Amino acid sequence: MTAYEIIQKKRDGGTLSGEELRFFLAGCLSGDIPDYQAAAFLMAAYLRGMTDEETYLLTKEMIATGDTVDLSRFGELSADKHSTGGVGDKTTLIVAPIAASEGLKIAKMSGRGLGHTGGTVDKLESIPGYRTDLTVPEFLAQAEKAGIAVVGANKALVPADKYLYSLRDVTATVSSIPLIASSIMSKKLAAGAKNIVLDVKYGSGAFMKTAPEAEALARKMIDIGKRFGRNMAAVISNMDRPLGEAVGNALELSEAVDVLRGYKGGDIREISLVLASELIALAKGLTPEEAYARAVDALDSGRAYKQMQTWIASQGGDVGVLASPMARFAEEHTYTVESPVSGYICRMDTEKIGLVSTALGAGRRKKDDVLDLGAGLTILKKTGDRVEKGEPLCVLYTKSPSAPDAARDYLAALHFSQEAPANEPLIYKVIR
Amino acid sequence: MTAYEIIQKKRDGGTLSGEELRFFLAGCLSGDIPDYQAAAFLMAAYLRGMTDEETYLLTKEMIATGDTVDLSRFGELSADKHSTGGVGDKTTLIVAPIAASEGLKIAKMSGRGLGHTGGTVDKLESIPGYRTDLTVPEFLAQAEKAGIAVVGANKALVPADKYLYSLRDVTATVSSIPLIASSIMSKKLAAGAKNIVLDVKYGSGAFMKTAPEAEALARKMIDIGKRFGRNMAAVISNMDRPLGEAVGNALELSEAVDVLRGYKGGDIREISLVLASELIALAKGLTPEEAYARAVDALDSGRAYKQMQTWIASQGGDVGVLASPMARFAEEHTYTVESPVSGYICRMDTEKIGLVSTALGAGRRKKDDVLDLGAGLTILKKTGDRVEKGEPLCVLYTKSPSAPDAARDYLAALHFSQEAPANEPLIYKVIR
Repeated sequence: MTAYEIIQKKRDGGTLSGEELRFFLAGCLSGDIPDYQAAAFLMAAYLRGMTDEETYLLTKEMIATGDTVDLSRFGELSADKHSTGGVGDKTTLIVAPIAASEGLKIAKMSGRGLGHTGGTVDKLESIPGYRTDLTVPEFLAQAEKAGIAVVGANKALVPADKYLYSLRDVTATVSSIPLIASSIMSKKLAAGAKNIVLDVKYGSGAFMKTAPEAEALARKMIDIGKRFGRNMAAVISNMDRPLGEAVGNALELSEAVDVLRGYKGGDIREISLVLASELIALAKGLTPEEAYARAVDALDSGRAYKQMQTWIASQGGDVGVLASPMARFAEEHTYTVESPVSGYICRMDTEKIGLVSTALGAGRRKKDDVLDLGAGLTILKKTGDRVEKGEPLCVLYTKSPSAPDAARDYLAALHFSQEAPANEPLIYKVIR
Repeated sequence: MTAYEIIQKKRDGGTLSGEELRFFLAGCLSGDIPDYQAAAFLMAAYLRGMTDEETYLLTKEMIATGDTVDLSRFGELSADKHSTGGVGDKTTLIVAPIAASEGLKIAKMSGRGLGHTGGTVDKLESIPGYRTDLTVPEFLAQAEKAGIAVVGANKALVPADKYLYSLRDVTATVSSIPLIASSIMSKKLAAGAKNIVLDVKYGSGAFMKTAPEAEALARKMIDIGKRFGRNMAAVISNMDRPLGEAVGNALELSEAVDVLRGYKGGDIREISLVLASELIALAKGLTPEEAYARAVDALDSGRAYKQMQTWIASQGGDVGVLASPMARFAEEHTYTVESPVSGYICRMDTEKIGLVSTALGAGRRKKDDVLDLGAGLTILKKTGDRVEKGEPLCVLYTKSPSAPDAARDYLAALHFSQEAPANEPLIYKVIR
């Protein structure tokens, strides 16, 4: 068996065996297979695709390149959610407390933001003292004690994904459904949860541009998870506009707390309830309707917010800041973006809005950029809203003097019309 | 413009502009574009293909990465031939003298053998003193004076091809018609001849396995050459069996001399006459029939052989050895391969036969292998021949003690039947 033969087989549309995939991944990690052969393989896989079985085997062999986390102590109650990434997506901060207040054990490894998307770990780091670097035993003890543990990515899990992803990122081979599915699922499965709910986004702020593409990805990931004996569900949701009103780290934490305290409704409350109820239904064998009613009760009774306080305190965070996460960032400059016209917002280029937030300091252009945790934006008007000329559309928060440039870029991401646009639903489909 | 965008465009089936191709090639050669991005691009080009216009532009931009040879001093008479490679293909040694004896100027850069195929330069180096390393001025003066100059590849020509080919070789992206066509034609065009005849092989000893594939490649190359204002023709010929009887360097030189002296007919004489007459027709504006008659006359009158002697002597070679090129290799062991059965040879795996010759010392497994110029084999029976059990099929020449292994491998390349196989023509088609 040689790397050349494996590339050739995939190039010609063949189906690789587990043995071939194992050989290839091992060679990539040992350096025996050079980057250029891995790159040729990835492009062949991108263009030729992979069967469901092959994607499952790739996922399995990727997991086998590293450690796995054993959550068996939590029996049927271990739970994890994953979002494919978007702008203003702070649902983990709401879903985890709701689910944990129903007895689920959320033991979750989460990512950092890059490019136009934010990361849960960054949002949590806007709480002084919160520890994202627990050891695995600390992580398990934290989930046991507080019902929730959310930490940063563990480098010992799925090293093959780290290698392949960094290569895909520079060879235009990211947006392949089998490669995305195996990348996401290898990490989720290695992290050990029995119940996994996926939030698969589509639209102008997501990697998948259309709902059918997002659905195809979701189905592939559900198939993989089920082959590993996990309980799986996926929510296909709209990312043609930012989720909620806040984009930025402390800003998003603040909005999540508002939802947990019952101060806030709208799309962010709705999708959080759906995601949490899907997790509860999977873990406890309830119908979606029963689980949804419990999720609503957890929120409205204040149980979920109490769970969040327990979690944050237990993981070292200053619970006092939850009441007003932005208070300590008062030194930020604010800048109001006003509407240049009267009419309706008919479309938002959500990826561009994410990049505005990055430019303000809330996100990373490159992996080692340092964040301004107080930076970001609050969106006052979204797709479908009627606006008058001069009316505030958005408030920018930043330490950087670049607010006027950011304001111009923000406006460039909006499209206006004289007629109200059709209303697109937040949730396209739930797949179980 | 970034390498990423260019890879992405080709991945999605887009057509690249000359500017994009120039940027990409320059980046590859400067090292600004890493090997893994070039490899991803090559696989995308392999699987998505390239339009005729794009292949022409790629060829043009590849040529622009290096020097070109100016043969304008020879007016309409400069001529070159190229074979896509095969086993026993010594036609250049016959075609060049025939064409030059009709006044054409053959100024040719030729390759060395690798894998199962031989190279003209290696065959010429079996003549003591023959210089394959002329400078460009010496090369031009030699063609002027003797009508023929054949030297090794000039590294200053098309450096982009050298880079891309070495990467294609290890990423399973060799067998792509646009990539092969641009690779071959960039070198032929940079070498400057006005008239170019291509010998495009198909079959078990060739890169193209079928005649229609070979024809597609030939048409693509003719299209490119004509866009550069060259006179082009291609012969699609059968490489399902070795060409002629000799495989090996001095052995092939000997067979070529036999054809030039009129001692030998058969396939090797026939294809040499066709290739030479196509060149003569292009350069002198004759009909193929008129040109063919001249080629036959050049051979049969002895003019072509005289031309070869002039060429070899002028380029430093010992003309004395031409009468018996194998004489100085008398120390070779010979080993006769006998037929294990009575019947017909119905198929020869020609690539395997080429590899037997390589194993005997006549070819290179790796680029820096040293050749045994006297090694090789003489084929006594070919596809379609009736053989009796114990009858000699082939004689092996080698200094290596591995002759019995080579004999076994030679037999493994032959297939026998009780019925005579259908006769396949030597020349499938001539395209002008």
